[in-house]
Amino acid sequence: MVILDGKSLSGKIKLDLKKEVDEIKSKGERAPHLIAILIGENAASHTYVNAKKKACDEIGFQSTVIKFPKTISQIDLLEKINQINEDETVDGLIVQLPLPIHINSLVVTRSISHKKDVDGFHPINLGNMMLEQPCFFPATPLGIVTLLESYNIDTVGKNCLVIGRSHIVGTPMSILMSRNNKFANCTVTLAHSKTENINLLTKNADIIIIALGVPGFLKKNMIKDSVVVIDVGINKVESNITKSGWSLVGDVDFDSVKEKSSFITPVPGGVGPMTIISLLRNTLLSYKRVIYK
Amino acid sequence: MVILDGKSLSGKIKLDLKKEVDEIKSKGERAPHLIAILIGENAASHTYVNAKKKACDEIGFQSTVIKFPKTISQIDLLEKINQINEDETVDGLIVQLPLPIHINSLVVTRSISHKKDVDGFHPINLGNMMLEQPCFFPATPLGIVTLLESYNIDTVGKNCLVIGRSHIVGTPMSILMSRNNKFANCTVTLAHSKTENINLLTKNADIIIIALGVPGFLKKNMIKDSVVVIDVGINKVESNITKSGWSLVGDVDFDSVKEKSSFITPVPGGVGPMTIISLLRNTLLSYKRVIYK
Repeated sequence: MVILDGKSLSGKIKLDLKKEVDEIKSKGERAPHLIAILIGENAASHTYVNAKKKACDEIGFQSTVIKFPKTISQIDLLEKINQINEDETVDGLIVQLPLPIHINSLVVTRSISHKKDVDGFHPINLGNMMLEQPCFFPATPLGIVTLLESYNIDTVGKNCLVIGRSHIVGTPMSILMSRNNKFANCTVTLAHSKTENINLLTKNADIIIIALGVPGFLKKNMIKDSVVVIDVGINKVESNITKSGWSLVGDVDFDSVKEKSSFITPVPGGVGPMTIISLLRNTLLSYKRVIYK
Repeated sequence: MVILDGKSLSGKIKLDLKKEVDEIKSKGERAPHLIAILIGENAASHTYVNAKKKACDEIGFQSTVIKFPKTISQIDLLEKINQINEDETVDGLIVQLPLPIHINSLVVTRSISHKKDVDGFHPINLGNMMLEQPCFFPATPLGIVTLLESYNIDTVGKNCLVIGRSHIVGTPMSILMSRNNKFANCTVTLAHSKTENINLLTKNADIIIIALGVPGFLKKNMIKDSVVVIDVGINKVESNITKSGWSLVGDVDFDSVKEKSSFITPVPGGVGPMTIISLLRNTLLSYKRVIYK
């Protein structure tokens, strides 16, 4: 069994990105610039945005966090987004989800210029991904395929089960894994809340990508030998062991499943850091205008 | 076994559309207008475009077929498309595929305004479909879900196997069948040329949607009892029976498969007419500006 070490791999990619940014700056050019909009006081959102900002700092990106109170109106938010869309010195713009309930996150997501949509949530980017055209891949799916590719995991013709059909992970992941390219070419099944007999599907899968939000859902008795397991879940659960009284666990019952799997991501340290590094990669692509002019 | 009679159902929908168009015209307003661009001398393309024009005539749409020789340059074609995009009296624009090899069909498809893309091929429409936002559904997938819905076929939680991952049928079909709505909610598997052990998948499927282009591929011994079979294939094969010396067959070995299936589409007369009627429905939606302003 091999641990898919997203922390280590993202660290290596970070060094490559830093090198490229150093070269850009050594020519006297401006650094790539990522703006994150953070609304309200959600603790997890603050943690995620801080992690993204820290990663930007480490590789030499310019980064700006714009904070709004949770009372901000949708109109004011859209106006700010529009202003950033117009600013040619900004390469990437993300709005940290979830948003307060009076704000429609789909409206917000699509108001970000697809050319700066380094999260890869905009319909144009998703449609282009489906059509195998240049686009910003959604950050988490991109992080996962990067991980699979780096560990030379054979995916062609394999049965890949994606559990969870969210707009930002499960659905684009299922498309990406089914595309005709070297890191994919899987026969993909997309399972969700209405799926019956999930155990039959998990038992038949060569690769399982789970983004369900249910701690420890995937258990040893549900899988076959040598399965590849990618755990996208990040669940905060109570813990008697940690000082804080809680810990982060994935959707996979890691200790039992790891014994039967050929490759498995830990939580934390698996998919999470790969998502952040993918965001940075997209931002650099945007800076270089290689996807869109 | 019930035959899913696309010809009859599309005929009924046609009457509904005609009634609506009659009402529009009775108010002195212009009729919805669909333009089809037809390039070269491909016999099948001419047949398809003629069928679309005939359907427009029957329900009272204005329709225009613009023919170009196969030597037309991509630039000239794009210029014409742009001119039609700007014309407010045109509601739908389709470019009949396939295109001559010197023309990039993806470039052409995305050059059509997504607001007039009644074929539903534009990345914005595909992305919006993924995000469950208002959009023009691709015509063939829309025709298929209409057929399933009209025959009250229970899809929720069923295993749906889509065979073929084309941009215009298989891939969007797989997304549509997995969405959380009343006509879908299937657990969807998308199979393609790299899929191994296709027989295991077909045997496990409750609904099979096949768009492979291989005459008679799906056989009786590959399916379980009471499966729902949707055949998107239209293959021209030699025939000793017909006067012309050829006939149209689907991807399903119809005579043997129909005995075991609960519902099945014939070829011709199944999916084909539903695709055309879906194109007209999209054109009417475009005319009414209910999807995009």
